[in-house]
Amino acid sequence: MIKIGPSLLSADFSKLSEEIKDIEQSGADFLHLDLMDGHFVPNLTFGIPVIEKLRKCSDLPFDAHLMVEHPENYIEGLAKAGVSYVTVHQEACIHLDRVLHQIKEAGMKCGVALNPATPVSSLKNIASFLDMVLIMSVNPGFGGQKFISYTTDKIKEACHMLASAENTHAVVEVDGGINSETAKLAVGAGAVFLVAGSAVFGADDRKTAIAALR
Amino acid sequence: MIKIGPSLLSADFSKLSEEIKDIEQSGADFLHLDLMDGHFVPNLTFGIPVIEKLRKCSDLPFDAHLMVEHPENYIEGLAKAGVSYVTVHQEACIHLDRVLHQIKEAGMKCGVALNPATPVSSLKNIASFLDMVLIMSVNPGFGGQKFISYTTDKIKEACHMLASAENTHAVVEVDGGINSETAKLAVGAGAVFLVAGSAVFGADDRKTAIAALR
Amino acid sequence: MIKIGPSLLSADFSKLSEEIKDIEQSGADFLHLDLMDGHFVPNLTFGIPVIEKLRKCSDLPFDAHLMVEHPENYIEGLAKAGVSYVTVHQEACIHLDRVLHQIKEAGMKCGVALNPATPVSSLKNIASFLDMVLIMSVNPGFGGQKFISYTTDKIKEACHMLASAENTHAVVEVDGGINSETAKLAVGAGAVFLVAGSAVFGADDRKTAIAALR
Amino acid sequence: MIKIGPSLLSADFSKLSEEIKDIEQSGADFLHLDLMDGHFVPNLTFGIPVIEKLRKCSDLPFDAHLMVEHPENYIEGLAKAGVSYVTVHQEACIHLDRVLHQIKEAGMKCGVALNPATPVSSLKNIASFLDMVLIMSVNPGFGGQKFISYTTDKIKEACHMLASAENTHAVVEVDGGINSETAKLAVGAGAVFLVAGSAVFGADDRKTAIAALR
Amino acid sequence: MIKIGPSLLSADFSKLSEEIKDIEQSGADFLHLDLMDGHFVPNLTFGIPVIEKLRKCSDLPFDAHLMVEHPENYIEGLAKAGVSYVTVHQEACIHLDRVLHQIKEAGMKCGVALNPATPVSSLKNIASFLDMVLIMSVNPGFGGQKFISYTTDKIKEACHMLASAENTHAVVEVDGGINSETAKLAVGAGAVFLVAGSAVFGADDRKTAIAALR
Amino acid sequence: MIKIGPSLLSADFSKLSEEIKDIEQSGADFLHLDLMDGHFVPNLTFGIPVIEKLRKCSDLPFDAHLMVEHPENYIEGLAKAGVSYVTVHQEACIHLDRVLHQIKEAGMKCGVALNPATPVSSLKNIASFLDMVLIMSVNPGFGGQKFISYTTDKIKEACHMLASAENTHAVVEVDGGINSETAKLAVGAGAVFLVAGSAVFGADDRKTAIAALR
Repeated sequence: MIKIGPSLLSADFSKLSEEIKDIEQSGADFLHLDLMDGHFVPNLTFGIPVIEKLRKCSDLPFDAHLMVEHPENYIEGLAKAGVSYVTVHQEACIHLDRVLHQIKEAGMKCGVALNPATPVSSLKNIASFLDMVLIMSVNPGFGGQKFISYTTDKIKEACHMLASAENTHAVVEVDGGINSETAKLAVGAGAVFLVAGSAVFGADDRKTAIAALR
Repeated sequence: MIKIGPSLLSADFSKLSEEIKDIEQSGADFLHLDLMDGHFVPNLTFGIPVIEKLRKCSDLPFDAHLMVEHPENYIEGLAKAGVSYVTVHQEACIHLDRVLHQIKEAGMKCGVALNPATPVSSLKNIASFLDMVLIMSVNPGFGGQKFISYTTDKIKEACHMLASAENTHAVVEVDGGINSETAKLAVGAGAVFLVAGSAVFGADDRKTAIAALR
Repeated sequence: MIKIGPSLLSADFSKLSEEIKDIEQSGADFLHLDLMDGHFVPNLTFGIPVIEKLRKCSDLPFDAHLMVEHPENYIEGLAKAGVSYVTVHQEACIHLDRVLHQIKEAGMKCGVALNPATPVSSLKNIASFLDMVLIMSVNPGFGGQKFISYTTDKIKEACHMLASAENTHAVVEVDGGINSETAKLAVGAGAVFLVAGSAVFGADDRKTAIAALR
Repeated sequence: MIKIGPSLLSADFSKLSEEIKDIEQSGADFLHLDLMDGHFVPNLTFGIPVIEKLRKCSDLPFDAHLMVEHPENYIEGLAKAGVSYVTVHQEACIHLDRVLHQIKEAGMKCGVALNPATPVSSLKNIASFLDMVLIMSVNPGFGGQKFISYTTDKIKEACHMLASAENTHAVVEVDGGINSETAKLAVGAGAVFLVAGSAVFGADDRKTAIAALR
Repeated sequence: MIKIGPSLLSADFSKLSEEIKDIEQSGADFLHLDLMDGHFVPNLTFGIPVIEKLRKCSDLPFDAHLMVEHPENYIEGLAKAGVSYVTVHQEACIHLDRVLHQIKEAGMKCGVALNPATPVSSLKNIASFLDMVLIMSVNPGFGGQKFISYTTDKIKEACHMLASAENTHAVVEVDGGINSETAKLAVGAGAVFLVAGSAVFGADDRKTAIAALR
Repeated sequence: MIKIGPSLLSADFSKLSEEIKDIEQSGADFLHLDLMDGHFVPNLTFGIPVIEKLRKCSDLPFDAHLMVEHPENYIEGLAKAGVSYVTVHQEACIHLDRVLHQIKEAGMKCGVALNPATPVSSLKNIASFLDMVLIMSVNPGFGGQKFISYTTDKIKEACHMLASAENTHAVVEVDGGINSETAKLAVGAGAVFLVAGSAVFGADDRKTAIAALR
């Protein structure tokens, strides 16, 4: 049931087609795309022009995590680029319901990401509307960070909130510091989508690495 | 003397290593890198994590054009990534002299880009300090635009300004809508660095395309 | 007990004096004023210069809903223009207590509006201080939207919160997608002020339309 | 040849239809529309929802002066509302050429407004592209200010710049503190469009007032 | 157990060395430093260049309260200046966990301040990580305000939250309108650090004043 | 004729009264006050609360240099604090004429500061209105920088501009990297007000240091 999504940010950008095919064959379930704009977070990674060229390389579902201000400006382009899931940050969205509707109306599934300190209860009213809750287990914007242990409580809370909202289709995703140790904590708390960075792309044997996470 | 720099934005992002080697073998003189942050311009393209992985694929000089707010935050990373030229926008820099010093102190050459409507005279006081003036011949942030004809006068003005400042090493670069027709206009006005997008990456025969521009 | 406030945004701006007199005679209880600044929401509607000229046309209480950034800049002008209620958005106010005090000190009643996804619990500490809670039943900034059904739970929560704070004078107002069907839902959940747009100004018989909402 | 455009900001907003018909019959040549967003200038006046309703009341050309940030967001709506001239502020437009093209492509005439201290030379490169230069003779955002005398030199400079650009169709408009005295100064310096506020709408006899300005 | 920290903002800035020595000898437990940037709050007070020069004048612990946007930019400088406690505003920090880690990694204790209307529950997930919760009992940015009575409930909630998180070392601090009357309310609710402005620096006998607060 | 103004930023903030009296007795002509807000420049120094307490310590004229965004918010407070000259940055003022009028109406003298790369011609239209032009000979916001040599041309240009505007009372001030060597360059180019930092406050004999600069 657990699904593993390697993060493109850890891939070799000089040969993305190869990299994506390789993780697909290694058993990855989806591809996680970390868009960063240098404003919501300090780094600038990549945007829609890069994603567009990747769609034809793989059949993996694309899961876009928008670490950007004004995510509403990206929805149309992501839909055209063939993305399946779009996750926006609660902290970036004054008009959160509006952007979630916009994502669904563009034919994609919608998620909300929460920074480590942001309470799960901030999503209480829209819990029934969501397809995904993304619990950040590190602070977004930087690679190589350690899993923050108090976030396992948030994974449980998110699962509980979705259950209370009788929303059985939505999933809890976890992103940050995931390795075979922390994957157990996350899954034990109820997460079903795990984002992995260097744990997959940096592994000598990616197939084994993905299996280990699962 | 004229140097041609294809813009990475027109390359196939799924196989950048191949693309860059190909244009290098086709006679390109440098690689132009269009960083956009979705704030200074509406699009978000790519940032330092992409550039870092490309440096090992090619010996071409990298010419980074920062269409971003707060370009000062990118200088250190670009230097580490092996970039040779860094161009910032006059319109993005309240402390323009400071960021130019920062670029030089990081061991790179510095340039200033001017939007079509921005007068060349805005650079008058720092003309002697510059390594490059980039005249935008389209509005930055979008591909597929036509060369704006009034910008040829700005190319001439920029050349004149640099000559008056007894700055003989600095070059005038032109970016936007460059094809074999408009390349003549730009070169005729004094430009020596030409950025080309689809005219090179979109050509059936890139070698011929580059030669035609030159 | 239920009070109906047609929204000026649906009136004919070429003859506001007539429009306001007409809804006053049709039984409207107050006039709802949607100030939008093109920043907090994408549209720009009207500001204090318009409101000032309307005060003399009618005895209806004016209820100003500030969909603007920096609402603190508008309080003094609204008081001078003869406004009775001023509602600011929770999402626009880092210093929420301060602006509410400012409204009361200017002699007006103060309210806080909540976007659909914003939890009622964000107002917990100031519940006893409020004169109004405005539950947005659509996303602010656009006309012609449908009532979002999950917001009825928020109306109930707001009523409960005010009761717990032993604040019996404060009212719950609902704005967005109100027609004779949704008015029942809102009133059933505890709302006493209903804002109506096209349901009143667009009706052939405004008197009947207001009566129907009530 | 001189054209007089009363500013809607000085009209009675409770009966705009009457007001506009009255100034049309009094000999006004166009209607000046002061859009302010509370950000570029401290006041918030009115936006497109108001303008839309006025188009049917009069055949006067509408001349929209955008004292707003991000004027690019308003162009499409102004075109639909039947506006003829759209003027943006140089100080509000990092991508000035782009928004001017956008205005023309939407079928309207384009102008650029300059705050009192902003040099005319900032428009040098796009002089041939413009339909109008608006010299602000007061600081935008407030009514009832006095004409700033040094701006007459800017009117002359603007006329000279347009002549040098062989742009014979573009006009110089002046806005701020215009009365029968200052109108002479402005016209003497080369202005052909004069915006008038209280000098027209506040006059007992508007026909005589407009004639006096002309 | 109660500790009293006079606020530097009420001292005489022309002779800070004397002032600080005087309150140290009068029994103050720490020195509270109100950094304001004119953006998060309307006033601009002082920054690190002032603090640096004060460290050598006294052995009192320095407690810096950052009423600034982008507090992450100040952490390194505050550590170098010898500050012991750094408190950031929840309302100023999208990446709250990140800046708290940054403070601890720089060797200082970390706190979070809450504006009067901001719920204590916003800190729920990071309660175990904190060294201090600062309950603002007035709106930050201005002197001479009255203690807001509803904030005593927040002091209790904060104490309860820390107890639930089994965080026994963290303290609750209160800032705003503290005098001998309100100090009782704050301490009664569980506060242990009290910030005092004019109640100490404005007193004829500061020793007595501090004793009275305690 | 040359006037020397030590910059408070180089004083010892723990004993400002002594420091100011000392430089007054050492022959300083005015006190330069560097307000920085951490936004226009990266550092936050001090604001009006500090200045207010210094006015009574000295009869030196106070010369406030606003390295802040939104300088219009500080004018009233600076006037009350007894400041004589207020200088705002051209780069910080979209409505430059307005803030200069505001300064004069508050009874103070007004200046405009120019960053190293900002052309003098940006002040052309308001040259006759100014009391001071401040040529920055370093990038504002940091101490200990070297005098940028190309700024001597700007001093000459500024003097020429003021002469052309028949403005004989206005002075040219220079700030940044001033020592006995660079003072000669600045004065040779026409400057009459010199700001000095460590060259005065850091000198063993401040009287000699000031005399040397003069």
